[in-house]
Amino acid sequence: MTRPSAVPPPVTAVLDASSRWLPARLGEVEELLRQTVAGHGEALTEDATATLSAGGKRLRPMLVLLCAGEAGGAASVRAAAAIELVHMATLVHDDVLDEAPLRRGLPTVAASSGRDRAVATGDLLLARAFALLADAGDRRAVELLTEASVALARGELAQRQDAFDLEIGESRYLERCRLKTATLFECACLLGHDDPGLRAFGAEVGLAFQLLDDVLDVCGPPERTGKARGTDLLDGTVTLPLIEAAASDPGIRDVDLHGLDPAGAEALCDRIAATGALDRVRARALEMVATGKRRLDAAAFAPEQRQLLGLVADGVVQRYS
Amino acid sequence: MTRPSAVPPPVTAVLDASSRWLPARLGEVEELLRQTVAGHGEALTEDATATLSAGGKRLRPMLVLLCAGEAGGAASVRAAAAIELVHMATLVHDDVLDEAPLRRGLPTVAASSGRDRAVATGDLLLARAFALLADAGDRRAVELLTEASVALARGELAQRQDAFDLEIGESRYLERCRLKTATLFECACLLGHDDPGLRAFGAEVGLAFQLLDDVLDVCGPPERTGKARGTDLLDGTVTLPLIEAAASDPGIRDVDLHGLDPAGAEALCDRIAATGALDRVRARALEMVATGKRRLDAAAFAPEQRQLLGLVADGVVQRYS
Repeated sequence: MTRPSAVPPPVTAVLDASSRWLPARLGEVEELLRQTVAGHGEALTEDATATLSAGGKRLRPMLVLLCAGEAGGAASVRAAAAIELVHMATLVHDDVLDEAPLRRGLPTVAASSGRDRAVATGDLLLARAFALLADAGDRRAVELLTEASVALARGELAQRQDAFDLEIGESRYLERCRLKTATLFECACLLGHDDPGLRAFGAEVGLAFQLLDDVLDVCGPPERTGKARGTDLLDGTVTLPLIEAAASDPGIRDVDLHGLDPAGAEALCDRIAATGALDRVRARALEMVATGKRRLDAAAFAPEQRQLLGLVADGVVQRYS
Repeated sequence: MTRPSAVPPPVTAVLDASSRWLPARLGEVEELLRQTVAGHGEALTEDATATLSAGGKRLRPMLVLLCAGEAGGAASVRAAAAIELVHMATLVHDDVLDEAPLRRGLPTVAASSGRDRAVATGDLLLARAFALLADAGDRRAVELLTEASVALARGELAQRQDAFDLEIGESRYLERCRLKTATLFECACLLGHDDPGLRAFGAEVGLAFQLLDDVLDVCGPPERTGKARGTDLLDGTVTLPLIEAAASDPGIRDVDLHGLDPAGAEALCDRIAATGALDRVRARALEMVATGKRRLDAAAFAPEQRQLLGLVADGVVQRYS
């Protein structure tokens, strides 16, 4: 399985379009992330460095930096690193729960170092995130990030609670996405700049991100996503593509998710795709991104920031087109 | 298996000796704990309320309140609740790792609600702890508690890393206890009142607490501890009683911990006890408590506080006598 490249195209587009300050500051975030996970014992350094290197799009740090603008300085770098640490912590813990062997095409901490070490590694990343902000006295940032972490954990709990329940409807699904994903995007924007327009932008883009992620789980392909198709279905996670598909093909609700094997999950993916549900969910996500970008118009900041945030939002969509 | 009573004798002794303010404030801590875990969805409320009710000695909150004194007010109540939430989070996560069926004689969250929900519940308790302090703007408290949480996670990682390794020596063991237990006791004292004497007191009492806990794992009895003898051995955790025992009965180092079953673990407990190691470890712990109490003499505060802190320290010992 090919590992996705370290810097995905949408990020490159933003970096190409930006002035010098943004790539320089993203570099500082990387450096701070590395420093933060170093010096806490070999085991953590090893596990966390692997997680760091597995890359990811650094979308949330980029939102922090862009919303803060060039004047954001060291505080924006700290906030950007802290939010990525929280995001990494949840990934590490998710992999413990899902017993996922791969994340972004590389072995997960849970798979390579054991579930036990992965729980502790996630805890440490979370604690380091808060410590990073608390030590610098960034009171408002600590407040925003702790609230977002509460939402994240609530979202995870809700997802576990809803597992294998095909009666889950759209509003419950959207509430879960808000808790699990959109709140952290919202938080990234607010960490950069406390503005209701930016909050709304973050929330819409975050929700779109989760919808598209759920589409991608159904349509793959594995060489781009780094994981098998239908992974969510095997975990019992009922997502919008499934809910939408069941609206036009009600027999889908009779499938016993508990009894699925990987081949059965792929077959269910094909059945979902055959209903046209994926296009409908994609269209919903595009509409969310468009709404989010309109909310940016109301926010007061430099034209370059608005343009680059628009590119980030487009990148979320392009990644899945 | 009998559930240990909600208020263990040492705590009662402290409450009996104290003025009215301490029990009143402990009541406020309980109320704040209940409020804090409520309102985050049914699943959490259920799991966390069970964890809260399982009781525990509320030793750490009591240390916060006593070190803060009567003048500590609402800030000391918040700090006391926050440190107990962090402690609860680590217990919930520990039980996920150890796959423990019982904690304090009651089913663990991991056993009753599944490992997946337990990981998310622990994350939420942790995030709520920081949010509680951050929202109130208790900057120094956030700093202290995040640093302690980092130490806790490092201690957990170290314990997993050292598992089943009979070459682990005393200094490594003590370092692990410092990270895993003593730092949170130290933090409790500092949250109450930032004083080097109190820090030293907390560190010594916390270390003694862990040593005695490890003795108790070997000598039981289950009706008092709420878990089977030799649970640590079955998890591969090498503790001071085992290290001490191996010094006079070197054959112990040849035991294959991986191959232990519960009966084998009990037999190993008997073999450890036969070397007199338990008395030697108990004596070390008593010496630590005495050292801790001496350090209190240097701290400047009301005689009642010093007397009550001494009772708490004695309580740690008496619980195990």
